[in-house]
Amino acid sequence: MTATPLGSGPEFDRIRAIAAALGSSARGLGDDCAFVPTGNEWLALSTDVSVERVHFRREWLSLEEIGWRAAASALSDLAAAGAVEPVALAALTVPAGEGPDTFASLMRGVGAALAATGGVVIGGDLSKGEAIALAITVVGRARRVVGRRGAEPGDALWVTGALGGARAALTAWNAGRQPAAGARIRFAHPAPRLVAGRWLVEHGAKAMLDLSDGLAGDAKHLAAASGVALRIDLGTLPLDAAIGESGIDGEPAGFAAQGGEDYELLVAMPAAFRGTSEFPLTRIGEVSAGLGVTLTQDGRPVTLAGYDHFA
Amino acid sequence: MTATPLGSGPEFDRIRAIAAALGSSARGLGDDCAFVPTGNEWLALSTDVSVERVHFRREWLSLEEIGWRAAASALSDLAAAGAVEPVALAALTVPAGEGPDTFASLMRGVGAALAATGGVVIGGDLSKGEAIALAITVVGRARRVVGRRGAEPGDALWVTGALGGARAALTAWNAGRQPAAGARIRFAHPAPRLVAGRWLVEHGAKAMLDLSDGLAGDAKHLAAASGVALRIDLGTLPLDAAIGESGIDGEPAGFAAQGGEDYELLVAMPAAFRGTSEFPLTRIGEVSAGLGVTLTQDGRPVTLAGYDHFA
Repeated sequence: MTATPLGSGPEFDRIRAIAAALGSSARGLGDDCAFVPTGNEWLALSTDVSVERVHFRREWLSLEEIGWRAAASALSDLAAAGAVEPVALAALTVPAGEGPDTFASLMRGVGAALAATGGVVIGGDLSKGEAIALAITVVGRARRVVGRRGAEPGDALWVTGALGGARAALTAWNAGRQPAAGARIRFAHPAPRLVAGRWLVEHGAKAMLDLSDGLAGDAKHLAAASGVALRIDLGTLPLDAAIGESGIDGEPAGFAAQGGEDYELLVAMPAAFRGTSEFPLTRIGEVSAGLGVTLTQDGRPVTLAGYDHFA
Repeated sequence: MTATPLGSGPEFDRIRAIAAALGSSARGLGDDCAFVPTGNEWLALSTDVSVERVHFRREWLSLEEIGWRAAASALSDLAAAGAVEPVALAALTVPAGEGPDTFASLMRGVGAALAATGGVVIGGDLSKGEAIALAITVVGRARRVVGRRGAEPGDALWVTGALGGARAALTAWNAGRQPAAGARIRFAHPAPRLVAGRWLVEHGAKAMLDLSDGLAGDAKHLAAASGVALRIDLGTLPLDAAIGESGIDGEPAGFAAQGGEDYELLVAMPAAFRGTSEFPLTRIGEVSAGLGVTLTQDGRPVTLAGYDHFA
């Protein structure tokens, strides 16, 4: 497997530097999951780190929610691979002086997120450190390799669920307000889309990723990896009801397109695909020859910046 | 797979609290590796976190050495499972403001440790954070399940390599001195024993673990997990030459038995096993009915405390 072509931005600059340093001691970096063949199927593997004061604050979330969210973020990568039956390993770092209860509460959340997707925790490691950090590794079983590559001109772009809820919560917290209940739950308790991911793979998904950095930014990664151009009509985006309840300034579709950490799936499906009523799925654009992402509103191109943890 | 019986100490108090909190959403916690069946073999999985100012200091090691050591620590868990052909995922946390070179240097060390065991890096995640931390997850292929359980009365205890070298380096650094070259290399560049681990499993290993916390402490874990008593003759311990070069105060065998992070293997072999010249392997004791670990020196029992990250 050669390396997946990478999009732009400071995080991908780091991945590019790592890939160059590793040379032949790495394989297939830059996708949501790594795939390893086993018998007549594939194992999909992903690791995801959540760090206090970077990804969350203890004032915002309970320890159980911190654990759930960290695990859900990793599980969402499996969803983007159409992988199921997850097992997880959890490497926990907790400040010195915290007792067994802190570890137990964090892991109760991790375990609940696994259980909700039919999975179990099978191992881990513990350390002290200056802040809470959880590195969650998940392994699931996939029928075929689906990643960011594979979208082709003529495909249509679809997105699961609704966007912008998690950003509405973050916006409230950062402004010193409590978020609306619906927004808070989207941030604290995201539900990874494993059932939808598997269904989409079984129904012909050609390329898929989960929206962890926001649609505007993540779409660029899919376009770069597939070597195609994407056109997304912001007027068609499924907006989370929490955006309206949160009194956001400005244009809600642009807000939602830049909202990270919704953990919905963006998928390129064959042109003949007509949607489903199995789960919320909305057609938001199409794939064409070329490179890059064009966002339109009322037929006019608009420019938005994606969210990047290193920007 | 039921939970492995756990030894004593603050770290295991935390693991016990986690296992209680997780209930049925966990499986088989407390061993070096988790095992997942696949086709006609097993996958062995382990995750290991290395945190700046807890497991290492940047004044002691280059970034490449920090990466190597973090990966070697995880790979050593695979060695204890007799697993080979490792793949790795690396979750890196690095302070804000560090550029792509820091990530690349850390990962160059991770990649070199994988390459040295015939493995590759297949994925990862990047975050900023207050300190450097690496959570390395490794997956290898194992022919059967070998862990901390399985030692039986009549078995003999053997250890690979030599002990105490890494502790000699730590002792020097903590006293404000530069360690002797041999001690430094044992701490900075441990070589995980995958070849030996696989060989031992093929030759009848009944229980095995890697010495990350020190022989005195780790032997207690093997005894507790197997439900047996262990007797170790300190006079037979293979001592690292670096102990003598480092001018250690006191008794070298006791020093070596309490030295963490040598990443050698402690293994219970059937009584009929006669050793090997394939790699350094020393008989240091035996397994009997009962519980706990007895260390002897010149035939007399002695008491040593094991190293525990949370003690």
